Amino acid sequence: MILSTLGKVLLIEALLLIFPMLVGVIYNDGTFTSFLIPVIALIVLGTPLSLIRTKYKSIYAKEGFIIVAVAWVILSLIGAIPFVISGQIPNYIDAVFETVSGFTTTGASILDSDDLMGLTKGMMFWRIFTHWIGGMGVLVFVLAIMPGNTSGAMHVFRAESPGPTVGKLVSKLRFTARILYGIYFVMTVVEMIFLLCGGNSFYDSVLLSFTTAGTGGFGIEVDSATSYTSYTQMVIAIFMFLFAINFNVYYLLLVGSVGKAFRSEELRNFVIIVVFATITISINIFVSMREIYSTFGSALKHSFFQVASLSSTTGLSTTDFDKWPSYSQAILLFLTIMGACGGSTGGGIKVSRISILIKSAFSDLKRLINPRSVVCTKFEGEVVERETERNVRTHFILWILVVIVCVVLLSIDSYGDLFSDFTATLACIGNVGPGLGAVGPMYSYSEYSYFSKILLSFVMLVGRLEIFPMLILFVPRTWKRG
Amino acid sequence: MILSTLGKVLLIEALLLIFPMLVGVIYNDGTFTSFLIPVIALIVLGTPLSLIRTKYKSIYAKEGFIIVAVAWVILSLIGAIPFVISGQIPNYIDAVFETVSGFTTTGASILDSDDLMGLTKGMMFWRIFTHWIGGMGVLVFVLAIMPGNTSGAMHVFRAESPGPTVGKLVSKLRFTARILYGIYFVMTVVEMIFLLCGGNSFYDSVLLSFTTAGTGGFGIEVDSATSYTSYTQMVIAIFMFLFAINFNVYYLLLVGSVGKAFRSEELRNFVIIVVFATITISINIFVSMREIYSTFGSALKHSFFQVASLSSTTGLSTTDFDKWPSYSQAILLFLTIMGACGGSTGGGIKVSRISILIKSAFSDLKRLINPRSVVCTKFEGEVVERETERNVRTHFILWILVVIVCVVLLSIDSYGDLFSDFTATLACIGNVGPGLGAVGPMYSYSEYSYFSKILLSFVMLVGRLEIFPMLILFVPRTWKRG
Repeated sequence: MILSTLGKVLLIEALLLIFPMLVGVIYNDGTFTSFLIPVIALIVLGTPLSLIRTKYKSIYAKEGFIIVAVAWVILSLIGAIPFVISGQIPNYIDAVFETVSGFTTTGASILDSDDLMGLTKGMMFWRIFTHWIGGMGVLVFVLAIMPGNTSGAMHVFRAESPGPTVGKLVSKLRFTARILYGIYFVMTVVEMIFLLCGGNSFYDSVLLSFTTAGTGGFGIEVDSATSYTSYTQMVIAIFMFLFAINFNVYYLLLVGSVGKAFRSEELRNFVIIVVFATITISINIFVSMREIYSTFGSALKHSFFQVASLSSTTGLSTTDFDKWPSYSQAILLFLTIMGACGGSTGGGIKVSRISILIKSAFSDLKRLINPRSVVCTKFEGEVVERETERNVRTHFILWILVVIVCVVLLSIDSYGDLFSDFTATLACIGNVGPGLGAVGPMYSYSEYSYFSKILLSFVMLVGRLEIFPMLILFVPRTWKRG
Repeated sequence: MILSTLGKVLLIEALLLIFPMLVGVIYNDGTFTSFLIPVIALIVLGTPLSLIRTKYKSIYAKEGFIIVAVAWVILSLIGAIPFVISGQIPNYIDAVFETVSGFTTTGASILDSDDLMGLTKGMMFWRIFTHWIGGMGVLVFVLAIMPGNTSGAMHVFRAESPGPTVGKLVSKLRFTARILYGIYFVMTVVEMIFLLCGGNSFYDSVLLSFTTAGTGGFGIEVDSATSYTSYTQMVIAIFMFLFAINFNVYYLLLVGSVGKAFRSEELRNFVIIVVFATITISINIFVSMREIYSTFGSALKHSFFQVASLSSTTGLSTTDFDKWPSYSQAILLFLTIMGACGGSTGGGIKVSRISILIKSAFSDLKRLINPRSVVCTKFEGEVVERETERNVRTHFILWILVVIVCVVLLSIDSYGDLFSDFTATLACIGNVGPGLGAVGPMYSYSEYSYFSKILLSFVMLVGRLEIFPMLILFVPRTWKRG
């Protein structure tokens, strides 16, 4: 069963690799064979696997987690091959880091400015296309377009989709997946049109839309989003914000439940946080960096872009926020940790989880004051089930555990001080990309050791797949009794 | 009921203030009136309050929390007065910060080296005596020596004592409190004798024992513990380690249950962590700072002292660990967060809580793999009750919430970069004292604004009283219906 699904994933990747190959052909950049070889290999490998017929018709939570974890690792290991064959990222570990960073929509890069300039059009397309693929999840895509039994597919869906509870959009899973992809596709196209209207080339518009839609953060230019016009920057900022919202909201808008859509508690919390962060950071940088942000409007623009970028966990930047004062940095770090809404393409712990965490902690505090009263945690107008509450807390505790272990292991690396290592870990587990200090928006991850790069790649996957699937691979019990 | 207990606390403080007054008289340092005025004020205020007779014979969890929180705030507000009257810490907010830091056994100081040299013997005694008082808890002391009904006193005890569960040492509460104080007193005297043997003066030996026993960290000398002999440093390091162990273990040793004492899981985890940290840090600093730590023995000595100091949340230092490489700093920060064992005089989240957090998270992970299996979290050989597990998790979540809010508020202050603010918050909530960077072991907190000092004082109390009592003061429900 696991092998059969993996086979399908391999075939999908072969299909996806054809796009950058075509781009390479159009621009005649000589990367044709770099893509052709993995495509052929994938087809040869994937076809027999996908044809495996199994007795077991259903998969459980455990198998769902394993499929998702293994699929993402394999996708990244193979997706890195074109970079190596073309010689544009000659080292395989670097290439894997870049590909994992792409698929997980992190946007942390090991490419210095020279390397980035050296990427051909086709390779750059593949690099940023991975964001778009990873944003909505690969296995959801498999479910949406491939025939085959879907019993148990819910577990795969649950393991891959962001957020504490999978939105009960519609009962039929495949239908849900198609709607999600539909919304995703249409919104990407709309952004593309807006960008084209702003005078960007077709190639740039497509790639910028991909990097925004997946809330990835790989830039096309060396200076991320600094050199674009204010119009283009605003379009990107607004779409980063939009892609960070729970797609459930768009679905509700589509079916006409406008009132219900806007009553979403997660949306409200997210908007409040973004508005609060934008305004206070604007004031902070306007007051203390008057020489750079000469008007309040300019401070507001940069503030909104950075807030939208880090809260959506995209990671694009229009200014070097590593130079911002402490308060602004503190807020940005908090946004990095929190991340986007559940059910969006963004990363982080998710607004809904943070809301539930805080609310349930205060419920407990109230229960302490008056032990005989019944205090429930409510979210989105409903009582949060004990099981959900428990899962959210477990997720949070494991998240912090992974962060601590990663920071300690990273600190062995002589590159970067402890604070940079700390922000690098947060930026990777939150799928944001840039951190502060030595991994600030104007630097890359290229100087880290290979061990650190592998570690951070793992952490990006942990963050994207929301802790459980990746950690489960390390629990001995998983491998007992098949 | 609350007022009556507070009255007793005031009287106790009057009694305690007589000690530094006598020290002042012996050394004839002219601070007699600085202590006499608050002593008289306390007696005048405390006597009528303590005589209040109430109808309610029992107090509940809520009242227990309120009594403890209010008592600690008042103790600190009044304990700061001698510093101001004597003019040795002229600013009241500074004096309150120093006193809170003393009572909470944090050891963060606003005194620069000049100010520290300016302290008279009596005032220095009071400053460090607060550590010793705060170490074991003031209200436990009240319970131990004062007559009066003790029904409900359990709640006070629970609110003030460190650790997730109060050790069920003996059923009688007052008896327990006396045993704890007995162990505390004897161990302090033993350390004092060891220090006297090392050639330290009687005054220095007493104060060093106090600062170690309370796991406080105020130094007598400008350079903390740097200038002492290796013998004295080792005595201090070993006693810091001993005072960080659950007093339950000593009680078990006293009654002859040696085997049971050494089977303690918390003790084992703590020892493993300390040994691991000491060895790896020794190697790290020996390899990368050969010019300072020329022999491995010297690296080992400094490593052990710093590990014992930060894991016990004392905060004394023999070297400027702010200059240590990232790995060592990462480990020290982790020790700051974790802190000592429950039921010791140390702060932090506590080894037992961290153990339960990690174990319960992994139980949940196992449950995810096989939903039908029954997986229990075990600690100290017993199944952890769901209620305890839940409390530990709530404590942890609120702890992180307080840290985040404090870091954001501190970052508004222009003193210190974000990382310093972060480590300052950890050092204060963990009751450690020194952090890294601008609040490193060679600097003080004097440059922070008054707002930041009040904030950090609050955070120290939050850390010492283990989150709930202080936060409960801010929940509106607490003040409803008496």
